[in-house]
Amino acid sequence: MREITSLALFVVLILFGYAQVALGATGRMSEETTACINCHASVHPGIVADWEGGRMAKVTPIAAKSMILKKRRVSFETVPTRLSHVVVGCAECHTMSPEKHKDTFEHNGYQIHVVVTPEDCATCHPVEVQQYSKNIMSHAHGNLQNNMVYRGLVDSVNGAHSFAGNKVSVTPPSEETDADSCLYCHGTMVEVSGAEVRETDQGEMAFPVLSGWPNQGVGRINPDGSMGSCAACHTRHQFSIEMARKPSTCSECHKGPDVPAYPVYMVSKHGNIYSSLGKSWNYKAVPWTVGRDFTAPTCAACHVSLLVSEEGEVAADRTHQMNDRSAWRLFGLIYAHPHPESPDTTTIKNKAGLPLPTELTGEPVANFLIDSKEQDKRRKNMRGICLACHSRGWVDGQFARMDNTVRTTNEMTLAATRVLMSAWDKGAARGLSQKDSIFNEAIEKKWVEQWLFFANSTRFASAMVGADYGVFANGRWYMSKNIQEMVDWLEFKIDNKK
Amino acid sequence: MREITSLALFVVLILFGYAQVALGATGRMSEETTACINCHASVHPGIVADWEGGRMAKVTPIAAKSMILKKRRVSFETVPTRLSHVVVGCAECHTMSPEKHKDTFEHNGYQIHVVVTPEDCATCHPVEVQQYSKNIMSHAHGNLQNNMVYRGLVDSVNGAHSFAGNKVSVTPPSEETDADSCLYCHGTMVEVSGAEVRETDQGEMAFPVLSGWPNQGVGRINPDGSMGSCAACHTRHQFSIEMARKPSTCSECHKGPDVPAYPVYMVSKHGNIYSSLGKSWNYKAVPWTVGRDFTAPTCAACHVSLLVSEEGEVAADRTHQMNDRSAWRLFGLIYAHPHPESPDTTTIKNKAGLPLPTELTGEPVANFLIDSKEQDKRRKNMRGICLACHSRGWVDGQFARMDNTVRTTNEMTLAATRVLMSAWDKGAARGLSQKDSIFNEAIEKKWVEQWLFFANSTRFASAMVGADYGVFANGRWYMSKNIQEMVDWLEFKIDNKK
Amino acid sequence: MREITSLALFVVLILFGYAQVALGATGRMSEETTACINCHASVHPGIVADWEGGRMAKVTPIAAKSMILKKRRVSFETVPTRLSHVVVGCAECHTMSPEKHKDTFEHNGYQIHVVVTPEDCATCHPVEVQQYSKNIMSHAHGNLQNNMVYRGLVDSVNGAHSFAGNKVSVTPPSEETDADSCLYCHGTMVEVSGAEVRETDQGEMAFPVLSGWPNQGVGRINPDGSMGSCAACHTRHQFSIEMARKPSTCSECHKGPDVPAYPVYMVSKHGNIYSSLGKSWNYKAVPWTVGRDFTAPTCAACHVSLLVSEEGEVAADRTHQMNDRSAWRLFGLIYAHPHPESPDTTTIKNKAGLPLPTELTGEPVANFLIDSKEQDKRRKNMRGICLACHSRGWVDGQFARMDNTVRTTNEMTLAATRVLMSAWDKGAARGLSQKDSIFNEAIEKKWVEQWLFFANSTRFASAMVGADYGVFANGRWYMSKNIQEMVDWLEFKIDNKK
Repeated sequence: MREITSLALFVVLILFGYAQVALGATGRMSEETTACINCHASVHPGIVADWEGGRMAKVTPIAAKSMILKKRRVSFETVPTRLSHVVVGCAECHTMSPEKHKDTFEHNGYQIHVVVTPEDCATCHPVEVQQYSKNIMSHAHGNLQNNMVYRGLVDSVNGAHSFAGNKVSVTPPSEETDADSCLYCHGTMVEVSGAEVRETDQGEMAFPVLSGWPNQGVGRINPDGSMGSCAACHTRHQFSIEMARKPSTCSECHKGPDVPAYPVYMVSKHGNIYSSLGKSWNYKAVPWTVGRDFTAPTCAACHVSLLVSEEGEVAADRTHQMNDRSAWRLFGLIYAHPHPESPDTTTIKNKAGLPLPTELTGEPVANFLIDSKEQDKRRKNMRGICLACHSRGWVDGQFARMDNTVRTTNEMTLAATRVLMSAWDKGAARGLSQKDSIFNEAIEKKWVEQWLFFANSTRFASAMVGADYGVFANGRWYMSKNIQEMVDWLEFKIDNKK
Repeated sequence: MREITSLALFVVLILFGYAQVALGATGRMSEETTACINCHASVHPGIVADWEGGRMAKVTPIAAKSMILKKRRVSFETVPTRLSHVVVGCAECHTMSPEKHKDTFEHNGYQIHVVVTPEDCATCHPVEVQQYSKNIMSHAHGNLQNNMVYRGLVDSVNGAHSFAGNKVSVTPPSEETDADSCLYCHGTMVEVSGAEVRETDQGEMAFPVLSGWPNQGVGRINPDGSMGSCAACHTRHQFSIEMARKPSTCSECHKGPDVPAYPVYMVSKHGNIYSSLGKSWNYKAVPWTVGRDFTAPTCAACHVSLLVSEEGEVAADRTHQMNDRSAWRLFGLIYAHPHPESPDTTTIKNKAGLPLPTELTGEPVANFLIDSKEQDKRRKNMRGICLACHSRGWVDGQFARMDNTVRTTNEMTLAATRVLMSAWDKGAARGLSQKDSIFNEAIEKKWVEQWLFFANSTRFASAMVGADYGVFANGRWYMSKNIQEMVDWLEFKIDNKK
Repeated sequence: MREITSLALFVVLILFGYAQVALGATGRMSEETTACINCHASVHPGIVADWEGGRMAKVTPIAAKSMILKKRRVSFETVPTRLSHVVVGCAECHTMSPEKHKDTFEHNGYQIHVVVTPEDCATCHPVEVQQYSKNIMSHAHGNLQNNMVYRGLVDSVNGAHSFAGNKVSVTPPSEETDADSCLYCHGTMVEVSGAEVRETDQGEMAFPVLSGWPNQGVGRINPDGSMGSCAACHTRHQFSIEMARKPSTCSECHKGPDVPAYPVYMVSKHGNIYSSLGKSWNYKAVPWTVGRDFTAPTCAACHVSLLVSEEGEVAADRTHQMNDRSAWRLFGLIYAHPHPESPDTTTIKNKAGLPLPTELTGEPVANFLIDSKEQDKRRKNMRGICLACHSRGWVDGQFARMDNTVRTTNEMTLAATRVLMSAWDKGAARGLSQKDSIFNEAIEKKWVEQWLFFANSTRFASAMVGADYGVFANGRWYMSKNIQEMVDWLEFKIDNKK
């Protein structure tokens, strides 16, 4: 018995040692991070406890790199010596390249910056940051703020309205309002607007004051000039891969009627399986094994993660560009269209001179968009994932339906657009010819809902097979109703003008 | 110590043996299924891994039948010999009765069919399939497609709209559009439309091409002529009873504003208990013990499952007819009414000659619907479940409120119907007398929302005590607002016609 | 080996003993409760099993009080002797002070009352009940029913509508309808309306008949004259603190568009962390330790619970008043405003003589509302919680945005109110001057949505940083659209009157 016990103990120790190596749990905190934590554990206990629960607090970059390629979560070739053998703590990120960050300030002898940026993260994750720079999300701030059409939509939604003398007047929104609405997801511009001295438990201390802060939007403009916020999905300070892979993370920005990926997923069979059985899946395994680690995809599985079969065959490479697995940009501005070639969409001009990827009547502005060959390539990437669990006939049928839906929803958008153009022609509303906003009248707002809410929802429902959402929840029912109401509005308005 | 260890080992072995029997884990795969998996484990790893995680992969039909009656999940008297002592794998289902399936094709020496049907499942589960044939869901395809009124609604929603010359015209939707919307839940008609040869890893192979595929709708018309898809709720290929018993499964088709059982449940106290504490319930026990296995009902508990008390007393027998526990068909087409007697509702004719279970003014078409005695019987079935956790006074109060809500929501529907009929009378809209669609004008669409969305939501909220949903979320607020808007529309329209 | 085994056994026993004390699991059931359970375990197995799963079934009041102050869940000084050494079972609550409860009835020799009230719970939890009496929720019944303006809203929503002779007429709703809608959350008035004899398994027995029953609304008027229902959040009969701390509990009444705290939370980063990682949190610890027990707040964390850091420092004291952590009453009736001083809001009168906390044009009725000093104090309470996980700059930025949103949403409400007042002035609608309901016409209902749905949603989205909900889901987009539609409605209506 004694021998058995000793043997068991030996096995346990071996396994424990293996686990240590597997986790790379060989790290210690740097002196700098220790200094941070000495105070901040009591000043902001939640942040510190959260970080301690994550992998960054346990693994050194060198240990992370020591794994075989497919299991790695880091992509650097070399990492600065001072980082290599300590875990990634407060100081490692918040004192990185202090000269590049305009929000750097002196703090107890350290040069600290508030806003950790993709440039900082690229120290260990350069490939992911590089891929993300091709992701249209990384340009989400400028693509909204520097496109006069979209900015007109923002102003008409967020602007302050007043009513006097039978007329509504709208003044542009404040930065705070924009930061609290569109730019929460698109990202604010974070700038140092001043400095202040605060009374703290450690006496008076100086801090920078930031405008556009707080923010974690995907296209945030950072004080070091970089674009994006990795924390949008890789939530501070645990940076849990489990969280990044779960649909609720994507839902922070993809839940509303304009881009309803989350509600569509949750009403799909995939979402149903996730809701019912997902509690026992393994969300931490790298690479992510289809069928063993999970039995239905989350958002990340189809759009981001490195997927393999139990035999180790790669079903999809990891990507942070994301749209390289999608043939269509479903998100209709104003019609669904092939993805833009460049993540910077402000350079696009259609024939009418508007910065839109299609004409007002739907024709794609082809020279700014990917061609059908590139679409086929991206479609093939996605199909490869589907085929891990579905037969070819199943997948063919699904993709044919989605192409049909892209076509029919574009038609339904065109019908609504023609009603609006008729309203402009007849003077019932004021549009482009009158150099007026195309978003500020009741019929124009109905038109926006046609493509931004209803056509869009119908396409997402088709693409992700959450059909219910595309009928009565927010889809075809409303497209058909909305057209009738636009026509009636036009009739009432014209009659009144007589 | 040695003796204790030996004893412990013995106990463990006994328990393990018991578990083996309890699970019926005595099965091996058939040679045919082994052949399937030899290739498909690498072609479609997700399907195979999913199946391996389920009970079908572990239990033979004979082992499943060997349990005491209440614990059984199978209901056959005899099962073909070739199935009795192997687990239920690919070949067992996909080669069942090949001559009956029009989608059967030769595949590596086997006669495979793509679409597994209730007829196939009935081999081991004949009682459930028989019950399901009385469930109105099993007729969901024909009840929609072969009812000219409902089909008119589908066409007006899914049809392609265009606007030219001040007029909207609507053309009927394609099969693909219908399959991607209404028929996702109602079920498509799956037919063999051709054959194709595909290049595969094993060389060229021939496969049938199916139209209406993929689909798992509850009333799917199958290539063997049967109706329904067990996989709608018993999701392939794990066929987890846990999943069938969780509300997200029902939500795939019962989440939208037309039939909002899921959102109502989730805002009810029952749903709250499920969301908060349901993670520790036992969803796999058969029978399902109230209070021990779960402390608040899911959809399945009230509408489907075999429920017992800790003392073993039956609170409800298992049913796949489902409506035999419900007195009212809440789903207002156009008014709430007693359940139809036959699951095939296309045979119903009201006095006006329309295939509707009520007149346009609300009176039930009694001779096609269950009588009050049958309603009482069904009400009693449901009350028996409520009483497992609630006092008689509590249940009486709840049922009185629901009856009140059926009455008042029918009145609110009648008020909206009278506005519409007035519009038809006055020529403000074109309806039955003009032989025009009753769903294609703005006021008609408002009328549809009155019963299909708002009255319906209010009733579900009352029946399942998710009151919040029946007020501002999608209920009484909108019923009252909608009537005022219909009246205004009528006024504007008539004034314009002057 | 034997020694080690003995030692292990000893350690296990010690730990088990400690756990016993820690849980206070020293209790036995009273004879009275044993008598209840002898029958009710078979009559209502679900209730009994549910109770058995909770803490009340295991801990005596004296054991509960024996813990150090911060760990206590009871707040009594003394408790009646008969209760001190038995667990809290059926009889302990349902026979408490029988003379005070009008619903007390004789039942097998015991004086039982059906409705357990806050007065009963105060036996062990007097501090919490006292705090709750200052919570505006405890007055939710009267604040709705006894305020003629709000009651007018209820009547216009719940009233029975009929259409005849081109006119809509509305009659007041029945008590059953109100109980099934607004009063589900606000609380019904529960009264003894009679008695009845029922045939039971134990023969004929007499029971009281209650009107307004069942109900668990937060402001329920109980048969003992007390207000509220602890079971609204502390769900019978498990009374799980885990459940009270989870957001789905609050969602029962805070999910709809009028008060969308839950959907806003679920689209926020906090909600995302909860959804992704919350499954492994400790919801039962008292006190509740930030960062260790949970890494993002639930509703209860910010608004109710006793929060401490790992070092034991208190971040927030427990409160059942709840609004003592909030500077603003976001819930715009009709505008956001400082919280009322008294939980009874029926005493408020504005300059126009209406029982509203603001004028119709937005000015707060200051002498009934807390002053800016009290607002600062409450704001500081909430900031203390934020600072446990966020830096000062972060929190400052967040609070500034929220104040901006209070201001801008009030402006958007004012614009809509001016359109409505113009409609009243011009005779297009009938309002206060015509002594007509201000809620019963289409434009009035649009006005209600402006503040009750859209402005409200935008504010909740800002306060809880669920920005997405405040834009397209139910916020700024609809505020801006609604104003345009109100103006058009006014134009059409006036034109028709010409």
